[in-house]
Amino acid sequence: MSTTKFKGIIAYPITPFSRETGGVDVSSLRRSIERLIADGVHAIAPLGSTGECAYLTDDEWDEVAECATKTVSGRVPVVVGISDLTTHNAIRRAVFAERAGADAVMVLPVSYWKLTEAEIRGHYAAIAKAINIPIMVYNNPATSGIDMSPRFIADLVRDIDNVTMVKESSGDVQRMHELRQLSDGAIPFYNGCNPIALEALAAGASGWCTAAPNLIPELNLHLYHAVAAGQMDIAREVFYRQLPMLKFILSLGLPATIKAGLRLQGFDVGAPRKPLQELTGEAIVELGRLLDQVRNQ
Amino acid sequence: MSTTKFKGIIAYPITPFSRETGGVDVSSLRRSIERLIADGVHAIAPLGSTGECAYLTDDEWDEVAECATKTVSGRVPVVVGISDLTTHNAIRRAVFAERAGADAVMVLPVSYWKLTEAEIRGHYAAIAKAINIPIMVYNNPATSGIDMSPRFIADLVRDIDNVTMVKESSGDVQRMHELRQLSDGAIPFYNGCNPIALEALAAGASGWCTAAPNLIPELNLHLYHAVAAGQMDIAREVFYRQLPMLKFILSLGLPATIKAGLRLQGFDVGAPRKPLQELTGEAIVELGRLLDQVRNQ
Amino acid sequence: MSTTKFKGIIAYPITPFSRETGGVDVSSLRRSIERLIADGVHAIAPLGSTGECAYLTDDEWDEVAECATKTVSGRVPVVVGISDLTTHNAIRRAVFAERAGADAVMVLPVSYWKLTEAEIRGHYAAIAKAINIPIMVYNNPATSGIDMSPRFIADLVRDIDNVTMVKESSGDVQRMHELRQLSDGAIPFYNGCNPIALEALAAGASGWCTAAPNLIPELNLHLYHAVAAGQMDIAREVFYRQLPMLKFILSLGLPATIKAGLRLQGFDVGAPRKPLQELTGEAIVELGRLLDQVRNQ
Amino acid sequence: MSTTKFKGIIAYPITPFSRETGGVDVSSLRRSIERLIADGVHAIAPLGSTGECAYLTDDEWDEVAECATKTVSGRVPVVVGISDLTTHNAIRRAVFAERAGADAVMVLPVSYWKLTEAEIRGHYAAIAKAINIPIMVYNNPATSGIDMSPRFIADLVRDIDNVTMVKESSGDVQRMHELRQLSDGAIPFYNGCNPIALEALAAGASGWCTAAPNLIPELNLHLYHAVAAGQMDIAREVFYRQLPMLKFILSLGLPATIKAGLRLQGFDVGAPRKPLQELTGEAIVELGRLLDQVRNQ
Repeated sequence: MSTTKFKGIIAYPITPFSRETGGVDVSSLRRSIERLIADGVHAIAPLGSTGECAYLTDDEWDEVAECATKTVSGRVPVVVGISDLTTHNAIRRAVFAERAGADAVMVLPVSYWKLTEAEIRGHYAAIAKAINIPIMVYNNPATSGIDMSPRFIADLVRDIDNVTMVKESSGDVQRMHELRQLSDGAIPFYNGCNPIALEALAAGASGWCTAAPNLIPELNLHLYHAVAAGQMDIAREVFYRQLPMLKFILSLGLPATIKAGLRLQGFDVGAPRKPLQELTGEAIVELGRLLDQVRNQ
Repeated sequence: MSTTKFKGIIAYPITPFSRETGGVDVSSLRRSIERLIADGVHAIAPLGSTGECAYLTDDEWDEVAECATKTVSGRVPVVVGISDLTTHNAIRRAVFAERAGADAVMVLPVSYWKLTEAEIRGHYAAIAKAINIPIMVYNNPATSGIDMSPRFIADLVRDIDNVTMVKESSGDVQRMHELRQLSDGAIPFYNGCNPIALEALAAGASGWCTAAPNLIPELNLHLYHAVAAGQMDIAREVFYRQLPMLKFILSLGLPATIKAGLRLQGFDVGAPRKPLQELTGEAIVELGRLLDQVRNQ
Repeated sequence: MSTTKFKGIIAYPITPFSRETGGVDVSSLRRSIERLIADGVHAIAPLGSTGECAYLTDDEWDEVAECATKTVSGRVPVVVGISDLTTHNAIRRAVFAERAGADAVMVLPVSYWKLTEAEIRGHYAAIAKAINIPIMVYNNPATSGIDMSPRFIADLVRDIDNVTMVKESSGDVQRMHELRQLSDGAIPFYNGCNPIALEALAAGASGWCTAAPNLIPELNLHLYHAVAAGQMDIAREVFYRQLPMLKFILSLGLPATIKAGLRLQGFDVGAPRKPLQELTGEAIVELGRLLDQVRNQ
Repeated sequence: MSTTKFKGIIAYPITPFSRETGGVDVSSLRRSIERLIADGVHAIAPLGSTGECAYLTDDEWDEVAECATKTVSGRVPVVVGISDLTTHNAIRRAVFAERAGADAVMVLPVSYWKLTEAEIRGHYAAIAKAINIPIMVYNNPATSGIDMSPRFIADLVRDIDNVTMVKESSGDVQRMHELRQLSDGAIPFYNGCNPIALEALAAGASGWCTAAPNLIPELNLHLYHAVAAGQMDIAREVFYRQLPMLKFILSLGLPATIKAGLRLQGFDVGAPRKPLQELTGEAIVELGRLLDQVRNQ
């Protein structure tokens, strides 16, 4: 099952909510995806952490999945986040995404109870069996509470046919080394931790999964291309220029910071859903300062 | 708002599922609660971690809340777990629980994104405002991914009228010390970490929130009464006797182990919901061995 | 090899330094030990963490070991800390301590490199072979950087004849549970983490290894006797009364805080050795306040 | 104070011990340094972690410092590790190193007690005042038990004149980002964590402090030059080739693994000092296999 289509900057759109009804704002969703494609990102990943996947009802989730795939309409590859607390509903979402035209699905083993390796394996296997598109394993202990070792992940890729890609968000570049070594370089891995983007690309990551292109697409793309071209002085310069922004959006939460940044850029996509809160006061000022800095460089 | 009614052994029933339909098995739920009351526990806490609250649909959740409160019917106090990912639905559940007759609700700040203190505070305040029964703050970083400091918790209790009790499951008895010191002993705290039950009671915990009474109620109650009576030799003896069981059910997950234990005792309450898996092979043998040991002592 | 002699409050004297020469102040050392014995502690433990063992030259170490054992002169048992970076010098110190009349030696596996279990085992075995008095294994990951599991410690006690006691300072009361379970209650364990003294004694600790008796001996002894008598209400009251002091001396470092406290009580034992620094400003004021509180209760 | 002389591969020699007397084997020390220089490393760093600095007597330490500086004799820069538990002796060693001709000294804040920032600052300031050569701050929480934040380190560099370089061994490349950002790129930082050498160089590290050149100098130098030249494909290839060796020597301890490797290469430099133990059995076989792999590629 080919996964070569996913490389470069894989951009995570937010899920806009109406300030009146609180419901999904489909027209803003379309617009946010059009912006990303126009800016040149290499792939679109709706319903990830940034897309507040965890806070949507099933009907809303379906609406976003449908709208995102239709909006992209094959111009770039689409990977849809289908994570859910029960295996039953994760399967339902995966099937829905495939039917809607997704090129791949991304699965984080979210759970309330810490899952055993057998339970995680069972979860992935059941989803994989229900669809015919590739699965991107997503390791993000900070949000899921579950940390999958590189060896365990490599076993999943080896044992389950359509599990073919790995997104690592633990922030430990040595995990990427291990994935590469355990598979003799055969498993494509993607970086999901913004502040180590430079190093992950240097270490051989196939792509960078990031919400940052909503705000600073040109810098993200520039970094990717500079490392690919071996222009390390430029890569470092471009990386350290965007690093304050990358750290800011990570430390204050992607939905709140990206939505606030879009508003500062004149595009109001509503507030994140409670218990998440909108950025306020000093944080907005700081974000504005960071955006100005980038613009003036 | 009085909370003196909650003390002693607060028992967490499982949520039984039908092996045929996979749906909630209401009649087994009733029976499991009757067993606990007959065994003498001091309070009942449906829809906690053990009750697989996180894996139920909204309809199922309502069904369990309704059935549990009606079954208990005032014989002992009831505290209902209403935790949910969105503030909106947590409020809906809290209101439902109050109407169904709950004496209190328990709230864990579950979320996908790590919440800021302002977000946690907003979550509790919004729930508290919607109901007139007491709220038990529940700190369990292992399942929620969010660790609330004793100082933050003490502030919640001070600032929000019907936040009146604290369940600490971090396993760090020094958190209990701090809660006591920060409130001059005014905040009742409850132990939610089974393997430190002896020490938490020695340190002044008002009660022990535990799923263990589903399997070994007499030992749990004996420990509570021995510490209360200052019979520390007996307390130690009874504690070390049940400790292997307390560690076993914690390490392999409460829904899976309690359900397997009930089945070994002749009461089949179905499997936990996927991705959770039933106990198998050696783990069941070990559990049987632990149950036999307890019975023969 | 009998270890029944060590139980109750095992007090750790500081090592006084002359403010003029910086050298060991032997006469103050004698006086500090006489104070502890007069106050009724059950055993004396020179050259521990509090005694700044790690910062002494070999000549100074010998001087303190000699003076401490001679001063006690059999009135209570003495356990001498002989920890050193090389096995060679740890053996030299152990032999010296035995000749000087120590009843036991305490050994922390201090090292620069993390030691493997084989290296730790070799270290203890080599020391044990060189002496005929009991060894107290000391686990304190915060200072040694090495964390020995209860199972590994229980193996040491089983395999090496004169390794007979365990001092646990990790602060995790569950380690004590494991030691008890792994040895069917045969291994005497001692608590070295001041802020969990109440719980460790409740869990069956044979004694409490502490520097606190330099400042508040009556409260330490009261706690020990109250738990032993099953007077848990009194035990809690006495424990929470001394807890602010126990936390203070731990958080700011035992040598600095105990020396500052003695000075406030009119007994100047000099400064801790650089890089350690004397307590200053607000910290001294806070310590004075804590001492006054205790006195006035 | 110029520090431009230190860049590239900074090699850490072992300290050889005689198998007969256990004392320092000065002639093997000379030979090990000559090997490194002949292999083309850019600087020599005696008495580091690899040099078992912590396990030497003062006389031995002096002997090694003297011998190492005289052997190098200005052919490449020398940075001498002068870390010691007391500030007094660290100063003595720093002065000795300067007189012996060292170009710089490296200081790790080793201690028994966790040091406060004021204590660490006092330690560095006192050493800096006593010498006129640059100081390399060394952060290695795994061995020292003390973790200095990038901000604290940047403050040290700003406030103390001859503190001019930073060796980061925490393994977290984000620390390097922070050092760079806090100083606008003015603080030269060096990587001390072997398994992230590729990423540290990509991030702009001035050099790589490593014991690996004792065994695989050509691969270490090749990696450094490939990154410098922007040949990232080659850099990755060379890095992943040596990574198994870099991980092996870190996980089993540098003194034991480097000494075993040198012996396999026909150069017996004795055993590490107890409690450290020589590599045995399977570990030696594995090391031989790794060395063969490198040779045959």
